[in-house]
Amino acid sequence: LPDLLGDDVAVLPEPPPGGRWAVTVDSQIAGVHHPADLDPALVARRLLAVNLSDLAATGADPAYAFLALSAPPAYDHRRFFRGLLAACATHGVTLAGGDLARTEPAVATLTLAGLVPADRHPLHRGAARPGDTLWVTGTLGESAAGRRLLSAGARAIPVDTDEDGAAWEVDWPPELADRLAAADPTNPEATLAAAERAVRRHLTPQPALGLGRTLADLGLRIAAMDLSDGLAADLPRLCRASGVGAEIDAGALPRPAEFAALVAVLGADDLDLVLTGGEDYALLFALPPDGAPPAGAGCSRMGDLTDTPEIQIRTSAGLRPLVEGGWDHLSSE
Amino acid sequence: LPDLLGDDVAVLPEPPPGGRWAVTVDSQIAGVHHPADLDPALVARRLLAVNLSDLAATGADPAYAFLALSAPPAYDHRRFFRGLLAACATHGVTLAGGDLARTEPAVATLTLAGLVPADRHPLHRGAARPGDTLWVTGTLGESAAGRRLLSAGARAIPVDTDEDGAAWEVDWPPELADRLAAADPTNPEATLAAAERAVRRHLTPQPALGLGRTLADLGLRIAAMDLSDGLAADLPRLCRASGVGAEIDAGALPRPAEFAALVAVLGADDLDLVLTGGEDYALLFALPPDGAPPAGAGCSRMGDLTDTPEIQIRTSAGLRPLVEGGWDHLSSE
Repeated sequence: LPDLLGDDVAVLPEPPPGGRWAVTVDSQIAGVHHPADLDPALVARRLLAVNLSDLAATGADPAYAFLALSAPPAYDHRRFFRGLLAACATHGVTLAGGDLARTEPAVATLTLAGLVPADRHPLHRGAARPGDTLWVTGTLGESAAGRRLLSAGARAIPVDTDEDGAAWEVDWPPELADRLAAADPTNPEATLAAAERAVRRHLTPQPALGLGRTLADLGLRIAAMDLSDGLAADLPRLCRASGVGAEIDAGALPRPAEFAALVAVLGADDLDLVLTGGEDYALLFALPPDGAPPAGAGCSRMGDLTDTPEIQIRTSAGLRPLVEGGWDHLSSE
Repeated sequence: LPDLLGDDVAVLPEPPPGGRWAVTVDSQIAGVHHPADLDPALVARRLLAVNLSDLAATGADPAYAFLALSAPPAYDHRRFFRGLLAACATHGVTLAGGDLARTEPAVATLTLAGLVPADRHPLHRGAARPGDTLWVTGTLGESAAGRRLLSAGARAIPVDTDEDGAAWEVDWPPELADRLAAADPTNPEATLAAAERAVRRHLTPQPALGLGRTLADLGLRIAAMDLSDGLAADLPRLCRASGVGAEIDAGALPRPAEFAALVAVLGADDLDLVLTGGEDYALLFALPPDGAPPAGAGCSRMGDLTDTPEIQIRTSAGLRPLVEGGWDHLSSE
């Protein structure tokens, strides 16, 4: 184990002139945020990723992490730290302090400090105005599909020799593999591949750090937030913070490839997964009317912000109010 | 509940020129760090106190807190937040962010950021040199006695109307109260009063923030650390970090009033509680040979640092090696 206890306190270096530290905290609880038997190295990687996704939403450069880990006696702390330190190294993050204790289930909480340089305008939720365009990175619903596949028996199996969680494959229960292969008889591999991508997206989300930085560097009035609880829960938060309403287009919400087949196998509703599935760890942002997202960043325009408090969604059946709600870690689901 | 989710990230203000942020993290787990049925308002106060004690050991001024709280469905979040916010207000701390989730048992992790102004030298463990004198604030063993009294059936009962955990009394099982009253027949109240002080010391430690600041302001070469795991566990850490040994005097270790009677009722060993009981949340520090602690700060000189790696303790039976060990939150006790 790294010596997290080198001192009671880590004194962060003085930020460069005009720079500021941005701080976020997020937890991963076994059996709540991830399968209870998930490889501790992957738990650690996911823990860092969900915190990085918060920093991405403000446009900060990740720098220092502080860990509080409580785990059962038999927990593989070694794999956890290998995974965490490897992932930290990838992102230039130094593990600067922490606290260890013993509990069942395992609870890992990470505090992440990132630097906002003087010439960068930190993004926040309250900056949107009526007339802004509304955007999202990547796709929606894929992580929630991955969670459902894990609930249905898919498992992440480490194949690494470094024990740091970098390499793993998905093990499918035969019955689930058969159903996935049968979803598109003309291309049996396609749905299985989409399912594997969904599990990977769920367990190791890719935070939009580069895009967050780029948007913050533009110096424009840009509202942004991390999509962690699902669009139907998070968009109302951005709208309330900014004092705006929204009108979004269900057809413009970006789905991953082969999503329809995956949704069919899961017996789920496409729009339900996309709107309320949660844990997308994607960037939701609003641009001034004359603004455009960086080219090549994989952003989709999903709608516009309005000057009424309502949030509405346009489907083939017409315009209806968006029902607020999403993936709720506090629900007793 | 306060809106912890105002943004994904809290951007700390730029520190004053030359100032730096000091960061620490500590958890409170129900049934591990405190009785499982402890009033959530007291849990919150204890959570802040143990983190403040870490900041005290570096000489930082507490400023911002970030909470991760996972608790069962029936948990009284309202009392927890009332206690936390009241205690934060007392210490000038702003609750700046957090994350809520659901688990059994309740796990609360606080990250605390404090400011080290430019003209203050942050204290750390590695600054001690042979010939330094070794000091501690307040008394040792009292918190551990309080923990044993709680294990023996003492309970903290809130009596407050504000529901913020500020006012509470100790409820004693009749048999334990009788034994405490009988410990000193000439003064039956004395041991009971000492027992109540021990429970209070354990549940609501008083971090040595003022002393830590004063020591750091001296600008001298001062080693310091928070005594959280017991002197027999923490002193070796300070010695290793500084590359020194130590010789301490068992008789000079400060005990609280009526400690002998309390120890007798608990069937404990005086020196064992003082050395390994843990959770003292007191400041252990070493001063250069010509240094003296601030007058009136209640500091006791317990020994000296040496140029050998050994840590020895002088008792009435002579000088013997200090057995390393203490209160271990990772033990399966």
